[in-house]
Amino acid sequence: LNLFYQPRLSEGISLLEGDEAHHAIRVLRLKIGDLIFVTDGKGIMAHAAITLVDKNSCEFRITQQATSTRSFEINLFVAPTKNSDRMEWLVEKATEIGVSSITMMLCERSERKQISYDRLVKMAIGAMKQSQQSFLPEVYDITAFEEIVGKNFGQKFIAFVDQTNPDHLKNLVAPGVKYAILIGPEGDFTQAEIDLAIENNWKKVSLGPTRLRTETAALTATLTFVLANT
Amino acid sequence: LNLFYQPRLSEGISLLEGDEAHHAIRVLRLKIGDLIFVTDGKGIMAHAAITLVDKNSCEFRITQQATSTRSFEINLFVAPTKNSDRMEWLVEKATEIGVSSITMMLCERSERKQISYDRLVKMAIGAMKQSQQSFLPEVYDITAFEEIVGKNFGQKFIAFVDQTNPDHLKNLVAPGVKYAILIGPEGDFTQAEIDLAIENNWKKVSLGPTRLRTETAALTATLTFVLANT
Repeated sequence: LNLFYQPRLSEGISLLEGDEAHHAIRVLRLKIGDLIFVTDGKGIMAHAAITLVDKNSCEFRITQQATSTRSFEINLFVAPTKNSDRMEWLVEKATEIGVSSITMMLCERSERKQISYDRLVKMAIGAMKQSQQSFLPEVYDITAFEEIVGKNFGQKFIAFVDQTNPDHLKNLVAPGVKYAILIGPEGDFTQAEIDLAIENNWKKVSLGPTRLRTETAALTATLTFVLANT
Repeated sequence: LNLFYQPRLSEGISLLEGDEAHHAIRVLRLKIGDLIFVTDGKGIMAHAAITLVDKNSCEFRITQQATSTRSFEINLFVAPTKNSDRMEWLVEKATEIGVSSITMMLCERSERKQISYDRLVKMAIGAMKQSQQSFLPEVYDITAFEEIVGKNFGQKFIAFVDQTNPDHLKNLVAPGVKYAILIGPEGDFTQAEIDLAIENNWKKVSLGPTRLRTETAALTATLTFVLANT
């Protein structure tokens, strides 16, 4: 069965709109009576039947629904890479694995100051549907490091190229809390940024013995959090 | 410092050839006396100085070298995806993280019967150099499932879409051994393939609560093995 996204499901909206309607009507050519899954991206997964199809929208009636909650929360802050494909790839993979939010982070040495935000959101929606999940990660546009560093989370980490041998993330993760991790640009964080993070109680961690690209580091961190909760 | 690849370092070959020579001479324009790193992809990491540069090759003299060994071994068997970019991406990421070998596996439901083998090898060499490692994973061209399934490894797993609730890979990994894992096509293994694997002592495992694409499953397995040894 095909899964569709309707973020306002809990407000009683039982209509597919925009790209979702287009996909249902023009691509899949769904008809009255066809069965679908619909999620709001916030934990609701509904079974539904199509009740009305017109040119640009498609109504459905929910027959059954379940609501999931997550016992932990992964917030990823990443300095975007020069090559924007790598960020799109990261959004897709981190969504499949179960990230809660991804924020593009503007650091002093960030290789890119702008991103194609709409495209990242589309990647996240596509990956959520493809992996048949009911959680859509929040994707946030470019945000300054200084703004991010002051925020509060249950556990806060800063991934650091392993010079001073910090602890491996794996060994510090407590299960069932809110995580946040900062992943720097290829040229790494500046010393001033690291100092500011430490002042704000972000803990330096290593992600392993090999040198990872920005997007690989971000995915490794996501998976380390997920495995600590498995 | 730039890292170069010379697979016959241990046979006393102290010459950059082919693409490696081209990169040194034409792209980086290295000169006599310039310092480089050279690896054989089998654990040797050498410091060297350029001693001779001509049109198509570039000699060096090793000044210092270290040999690493790995305490575990990860062998990945993957049914290639329809989109070949996804396999190239997997080779890059799995190399960064530390896979030992990647074999393209022909299953009954494989979406692709041929791969651009040379391109995958290039991706592996590029990723090894980029992540400054001294191990190049072996990349093997399309091999039949029936041939792979009879092989012996320390621990053998078959990743299975979680219907019968098998154990999570994470909970079964013993540290410091040879691992092998079979990752099926999007349409999954056939029942006959699963039966044959079980007869040959491959253990069914889950890779997590979400449905992962083939390449995401393969990377998740790789990272799970690495983290169990961290």
